[in-house]
Amino acid sequence: MKVGVVMGSDSDYPVVAKALEILKAFDVKATVRVLSAHRTPHEALDFAAGAEEEGIEVIIAAAGKSAHLPGVMAALTAMPVIGLPILSSTLDGLDSLLSIVQMPKGIPVATVAINGGENAGILAVQMLSVKYPRLREAMKTYREKMREEVLIKDQDMIEKTRNYR
Amino acid sequence: MKVGVVMGSDSDYPVVAKALEILKAFDVKATVRVLSAHRTPHEALDFAAGAEEEGIEVIIAAAGKSAHLPGVMAALTAMPVIGLPILSSTLDGLDSLLSIVQMPKGIPVATVAINGGENAGILAVQMLSVKYPRLREAMKTYREKMREEVLIKDQDMIEKTRNYR
Amino acid sequence: MKVGVVMGSDSDYPVVAKALEILKAFDVKATVRVLSAHRTPHEALDFAAGAEEEGIEVIIAAAGKSAHLPGVMAALTAMPVIGLPILSSTLDGLDSLLSIVQMPKGIPVATVAINGGENAGILAVQMLSVKYPRLREAMKTYREKMREEVLIKDQDMIEKTRNYR
Amino acid sequence: MKVGVVMGSDSDYPVVAKALEILKAFDVKATVRVLSAHRTPHEALDFAAGAEEEGIEVIIAAAGKSAHLPGVMAALTAMPVIGLPILSSTLDGLDSLLSIVQMPKGIPVATVAINGGENAGILAVQMLSVKYPRLREAMKTYREKMREEVLIKDQDMIEKTRNYR
Amino acid sequence: MKVGVVMGSDSDYPVVAKALEILKAFDVKATVRVLSAHRTPHEALDFAAGAEEEGIEVIIAAAGKSAHLPGVMAALTAMPVIGLPILSSTLDGLDSLLSIVQMPKGIPVATVAINGGENAGILAVQMLSVKYPRLREAMKTYREKMREEVLIKDQDMIEKTRNYR
Amino acid sequence: MKVGVVMGSDSDYPVVAKALEILKAFDVKATVRVLSAHRTPHEALDFAAGAEEEGIEVIIAAAGKSAHLPGVMAALTAMPVIGLPILSSTLDGLDSLLSIVQMPKGIPVATVAINGGENAGILAVQMLSVKYPRLREAMKTYREKMREEVLIKDQDMIEKTRNYR
Amino acid sequence: MKVGVVMGSDSDYPVVAKALEILKAFDVKATVRVLSAHRTPHEALDFAAGAEEEGIEVIIAAAGKSAHLPGVMAALTAMPVIGLPILSSTLDGLDSLLSIVQMPKGIPVATVAINGGENAGILAVQMLSVKYPRLREAMKTYREKMREEVLIKDQDMIEKTRNYR
Amino acid sequence: MKVGVVMGSDSDYPVVAKALEILKAFDVKATVRVLSAHRTPHEALDFAAGAEEEGIEVIIAAAGKSAHLPGVMAALTAMPVIGLPILSSTLDGLDSLLSIVQMPKGIPVATVAINGGENAGILAVQMLSVKYPRLREAMKTYREKMREEVLIKDQDMIEKTRNYR
Repeated sequence: MKVGVVMGSDSDYPVVAKALEILKAFDVKATVRVLSAHRTPHEALDFAAGAEEEGIEVIIAAAGKSAHLPGVMAALTAMPVIGLPILSSTLDGLDSLLSIVQMPKGIPVATVAINGGENAGILAVQMLSVKYPRLREAMKTYREKMREEVLIKDQDMIEKTRNYR
Repeated sequence: MKVGVVMGSDSDYPVVAKALEILKAFDVKATVRVLSAHRTPHEALDFAAGAEEEGIEVIIAAAGKSAHLPGVMAALTAMPVIGLPILSSTLDGLDSLLSIVQMPKGIPVATVAINGGENAGILAVQMLSVKYPRLREAMKTYREKMREEVLIKDQDMIEKTRNYR
Repeated sequence: MKVGVVMGSDSDYPVVAKALEILKAFDVKATVRVLSAHRTPHEALDFAAGAEEEGIEVIIAAAGKSAHLPGVMAALTAMPVIGLPILSSTLDGLDSLLSIVQMPKGIPVATVAINGGENAGILAVQMLSVKYPRLREAMKTYREKMREEVLIKDQDMIEKTRNYR
Repeated sequence: MKVGVVMGSDSDYPVVAKALEILKAFDVKATVRVLSAHRTPHEALDFAAGAEEEGIEVIIAAAGKSAHLPGVMAALTAMPVIGLPILSSTLDGLDSLLSIVQMPKGIPVATVAINGGENAGILAVQMLSVKYPRLREAMKTYREKMREEVLIKDQDMIEKTRNYR
Repeated sequence: MKVGVVMGSDSDYPVVAKALEILKAFDVKATVRVLSAHRTPHEALDFAAGAEEEGIEVIIAAAGKSAHLPGVMAALTAMPVIGLPILSSTLDGLDSLLSIVQMPKGIPVATVAINGGENAGILAVQMLSVKYPRLREAMKTYREKMREEVLIKDQDMIEKTRNYR
Repeated sequence: MKVGVVMGSDSDYPVVAKALEILKAFDVKATVRVLSAHRTPHEALDFAAGAEEEGIEVIIAAAGKSAHLPGVMAALTAMPVIGLPILSSTLDGLDSLLSIVQMPKGIPVATVAINGGENAGILAVQMLSVKYPRLREAMKTYREKMREEVLIKDQDMIEKTRNYR
Repeated sequence: MKVGVVMGSDSDYPVVAKALEILKAFDVKATVRVLSAHRTPHEALDFAAGAEEEGIEVIIAAAGKSAHLPGVMAALTAMPVIGLPILSSTLDGLDSLLSIVQMPKGIPVATVAINGGENAGILAVQMLSVKYPRLREAMKTYREKMREEVLIKDQDMIEKTRNYR
Repeated sequence: MKVGVVMGSDSDYPVVAKALEILKAFDVKATVRVLSAHRTPHEALDFAAGAEEEGIEVIIAAAGKSAHLPGVMAALTAMPVIGLPILSSTLDGLDSLLSIVQMPKGIPVATVAINGGENAGILAVQMLSVKYPRLREAMKTYREKMREEVLIKDQDMIEKTRNYR
């Protein structure tokens, strides 16, 4: 099973890398590309159009500002596309969020939080888990681990705030 | 194949109905519920926790204002959850959009446009199509139909604007 | 001389028509199309790629919500592209404005006001007037007419508010 | 008398600690927990449901981004719940503010300013002071002290700006 | 037990009336006043300063635009003050929300949703219920009734959407 | 004593008329003009430059969208200029508010609320009252009248809500 | 001639000091106070109520967040009040701007840009210049100096960019 | 061929310089000026009015906050004017963006992204390329170079992420 991970600029990589780490943790392969909806439109289109044949089952597309890449991916393939809005130096991420989430009728992009790299990866795994029971089970284990981490922090907090009791 | 469709209030139904029509068009079953993260939290949790067993493979959750229902669904099940922000009478939908999309690390909600009922339905079908090839093919046909509708409108427009040529 | 005028949906026509009226008033021809960056991406790309050959010298692209059409046009042609953000039912036009104006480095879109149909038309004429002196002169005349209209309204206002003097 | 103080992540502690210091200054006990509406939903629910029995009379809930924890608390207990929106790295706190304050009809959350830790503590004391006259008197003394601090700063300012007189 | 309910303008009454209906349903008395922080500042101050003596235990203050009334109430009394932001004709309620919720350190206002009249009433009852066990019980009953109403709507929805199953 | 009242478009008149009524009530004369910073820039400049000589002592400038007229007035005269932002069909008045209030260092515009016609008039009278004691006294009387109107509404409200006591 | 300059917190001083420097440059006296609408309401009211008698002719009021101080000043005196919104650590100054500028009908506050200390001072001088011709002349000289500074920067820029000619 | 490049303050130069570098790369001359719509209005007007005669064919105008300079340029010349919004210390660039893009009917400003210096330069070249075929060809070459840079980054990314495959 394989996820296509595309970003509009290599400066998006630090956020995208969080998604890749998630995919790796779930033993899901990733094809990672720098493709620009505006600077390399043909390559972007070719990637989207050929994704299914290449064995990709879900696409994650990250972009900032007027973030059109997720929409371009969604327009050229019938598989689900996850949009990952990237914070840039002005407008606090609102521009990329709205450019990705407010897609017109017919072509949705499954949008996650601004700079939410991990969540893009987790959502991709969840989508794949519709088909692959192994991933569903792995996700439940992952959830359980997250839960346990919070429980430990909860215990630490109870300890740390003993003097307020 | 079945989608769980929940809404925080029955007043959300006109938007949700657009998702249901899409599901019906793709011959995907839907379990439709009114569940409030705040007024019936236990029922909401029970639904999410039991969804997998009930045969549900994807959840669509619609809510307005401080829209917590999609996040509650996502917290209680490992399957993908689609968040559908509903426009209410103040703040132009920004409150429900941000309440749904800005989920913390670990628990994503696949967010679509404000009042984007059709797109919630289409995204659900796309997620299911990871598993069911029939839906992938049907989605391609649907896309082709959308394309043809635009082409007809394009022809009409060319006709209608002949005097500007 | 000819302008390519594209819109993402035929529901944008009432705003786009104002641009067409301006072009007609300046005796500039227009090729008008309904092209969707998402529903008919190939047709959109073909139009942009072939625009120069077809004799088009400037493109006006109108779109709402996650408004990607102007950016798609700009990506596929080297001629100037004017972006016309369309108001839709949520977020008061902010989504389409930001989706159009916040273009990444390298591919600008010349953005006008939300629903600013006339201004899109006028800007197209101004761009053409770099080449065609006739249009520069016509624009000066148009400006003079606008000025005179305001002067008449000014006189009317002076008259109408005489009792406040 | 006791206040339940919950936060969605231990990274919220620096802001929450300001509330704890206020409670301590008023000699009000606090049970402090890290509970996530999304990562430990059952523990969060259990805490809210058992709060009354544990002797808690008011709950303060702090959370950032899609801040659902205060709403979850409010849904599961009939006591007043104070929501404390936490600033995160994008959108300048607007997301957590709207996620907390825009609660639907029936389940209010008493929201204070973004990162307003002290005010969450003071509001909790004020709520308790409805029942405990000692706290009402202590609050009046606290107010008087605040007033005197401002008066001293006022005197200092008068001194410092003497050359502008 | 008594709640002071003040509004900045009698045009706020339709929203405030929803709070009054809640108070009545819980058999809580209300003193209702039109007091303007700006047009009748002395009367506003006198009301706040005398509220405790008059037997008022919680104040609800409603205001729109630059909504200063809740803050003025909070500045002049040590009891908890609930702020109810009122939607006016511009800026979609954002101005009144921010004017009320973003109170500086030391003087909190317990803010509810824009136009959230019912929730202001419910929060007042919850605050009083810290002292009056009868109200706590009544609130639990109220919650149960709300829950049942949602359950009925849920049943109706299940029925109504049978054809999508 | 005389106020210059300018508006960018005669469609602003309904809001501006409220300012004129205030001026009339205080027996202050007004010169009322339709002047566009963009369509009649020279006339706008001439008006501002000649205002002092014409006996104008304060200018009120109303404009919508990219509202430059108040700034143009302020740039061309040393007298105080009041900016009145006008609501237009998109962005809820935020564009005109920010275009008027965020003036760069050196050239302030005294900005009032969006569509705040009365307040523009009152502020003009207050500025004039620095010089004319008659207006200061008249303003105090006006304030007293406003206060009395609120007091009457307060009495009416007390009456009307008797059943909630 | 004297200006009353009040701020809600001594942390506002760096911005307020810019206004004081302007006043000093124009040889206008200033009474500078730290007064909190919320923490020292009585002192704030007393200052406003006594300002006229103390010889103050214009008030500048600076405040951040839910910035009520300018409105309180305006409510208690008939002289013009200038509002200076202060940037705080969240929401980028939008909260203080809206809290100050969106004043209800009857009580305007002459609002300047966020953190616009100089402009608050200049506007105060302009208001005083309605009465004092010396200040009008001094303002014209100040404007001329500003103009000359820009002209020098313009010359420097022409020089510096010679290689682009 | 020559572009007029004006900025409201020399502090805008770092952003403007990116436009100049683009123009230089395309061998387009630039006249660069510091002109303030508010501090040197006459010089600004003179520049705009004389631009055509001076051989300027397109104007780029950069400004921050209440950014009126592009609109002033557009009002005084019939040639196309590009508006470049500059980020300042508050409101994240939203004020300058809206002040520039929301121009009223009749006088458009071709707006690019906040701080989008390069794009302002590129858009100017595109406008000139309507007339000068050399620039059209050079732009295509520039595009091709951009494309190749992205392709190299794409190759690097494929390499760098090999372990995720």
